[in-house]
Amino acid sequence: MSGWVTVAGLGPGSDALVTPEVSAALAEATDIVGYIPYVARVAARPGLRLHASDNRVEVERARHALELAAAGARVVIVSSGDPGVFAMAAALFEALEAAPEHQQLDIRVLPGITAMLAAAARAGAPLGHDFCAINLSDNLKPWALIEARLRAAAQADFAMAFYNPRSRSRPEGFARVLELLREACGGERLITFARAVSTPEEQLVTVTLAEATPEMADMRTVVLVGNSATRRVGRWVYTPRSA
Amino acid sequence: MSGWVTVAGLGPGSDALVTPEVSAALAEATDIVGYIPYVARVAARPGLRLHASDNRVEVERARHALELAAAGARVVIVSSGDPGVFAMAAALFEALEAAPEHQQLDIRVLPGITAMLAAAARAGAPLGHDFCAINLSDNLKPWALIEARLRAAAQADFAMAFYNPRSRSRPEGFARVLELLREACGGERLITFARAVSTPEEQLVTVTLAEATPEMADMRTVVLVGNSATRRVGRWVYTPRSA
Repeated sequence: MSGWVTVAGLGPGSDALVTPEVSAALAEATDIVGYIPYVARVAARPGLRLHASDNRVEVERARHALELAAAGARVVIVSSGDPGVFAMAAALFEALEAAPEHQQLDIRVLPGITAMLAAAARAGAPLGHDFCAINLSDNLKPWALIEARLRAAAQADFAMAFYNPRSRSRPEGFARVLELLREACGGERLITFARAVSTPEEQLVTVTLAEATPEMADMRTVVLVGNSATRRVGRWVYTPRSA
Repeated sequence: MSGWVTVAGLGPGSDALVTPEVSAALAEATDIVGYIPYVARVAARPGLRLHASDNRVEVERARHALELAAAGARVVIVSSGDPGVFAMAAALFEALEAAPEHQQLDIRVLPGITAMLAAAARAGAPLGHDFCAINLSDNLKPWALIEARLRAAAQADFAMAFYNPRSRSRPEGFARVLELLREACGGERLITFARAVSTPEEQLVTVTLAEATPEMADMRTVVLVGNSATRRVGRWVYTPRSA
């Protein structure tokens, strides 16, 4: 019995952004656990068991992975992007906290290219200086906390990256975010909508906050907002290192 | 003449964390430009010209890369980590802003595994919820701005990642940061010092802010501070998704 659990980041979509470390873990696995579209990215091979589950069952999925490993399986939990950024790593440790009998298991977290950094690279360097990353979904936290963080970020002049900008359960939330940002940062601030970066469906657009509308984002979009010094140079957007 | 410039992230140290996209760019390059230790990570081969330069000449280095590409070279500017996070991408666009004649060049930014996410993966998931990244170097910005961002981050209960925690020119700065954080977050807050992650010199330690001392960080260390909900589970540190 030498089971293990590895949480691996598959990056934003393209295989060219999957690290060799992650590819090696996938090649050694007996079991792949994850959200349906991420499991679908792993090539099938004889003897590899695929356990695809729906969204919003992250802790149950992590518990399942721990149980498989405890029984001797070599399990990779696949995550999009980086597992530590609004993805499966935190859910795994929540499951581990509730199941101390598994704490001696061989557990590893393998980093990946997270969506905001893939998007920033495509746009230029909009996160080129101090920045923050905020999950705009209020599935697991109160909306007031999201607004408080947005205000603090604007006041401190951080560049910002938003994950999950438009949730199905609260479609009006992102309109409120844009409104708050326009008040706090002014209408000229640059905002980039990056959808499905590194996939065939990739779309990237940069506008001002005055021009931005909620419909520019969907669940596959990561949103980047510049700080007060962020500007265009040619077809690029960047934040100077001195800002 | 079909020169190009690509800014590529080599990740934190291990070749297993270099993306296939970056490896392909290095294989096609005629010229490698970068800070001495990063250029040293690129395997030499016949016909590949290496242009290693010292620290703090980022814009001059970028201008050199643009000039080489304008003359037909295929240039990779190598960056540690991710080029868009406190690294060479912003410097390239600064150079491009000053040299509009190069704005039609073929320019690409290739993301990499940035130090804070490699460090977070080793520690567990300390950046598992909303977080910010702050460059603690005051080479290019006023110290007062660093303190304002630290206070805002603490007030908004962001987890935090710090790059360049200890500069040679202001060794007392990081002591002040720890003091400010202890006042704003209390002594029990968890802080992780991650040095040279994914290299043979890797060292990782998590303590409370009360236990933290400035000497725990050097220029190869990235520092992660939890938010108010960050906690230990077994040998791991994580921030729950609901915080």
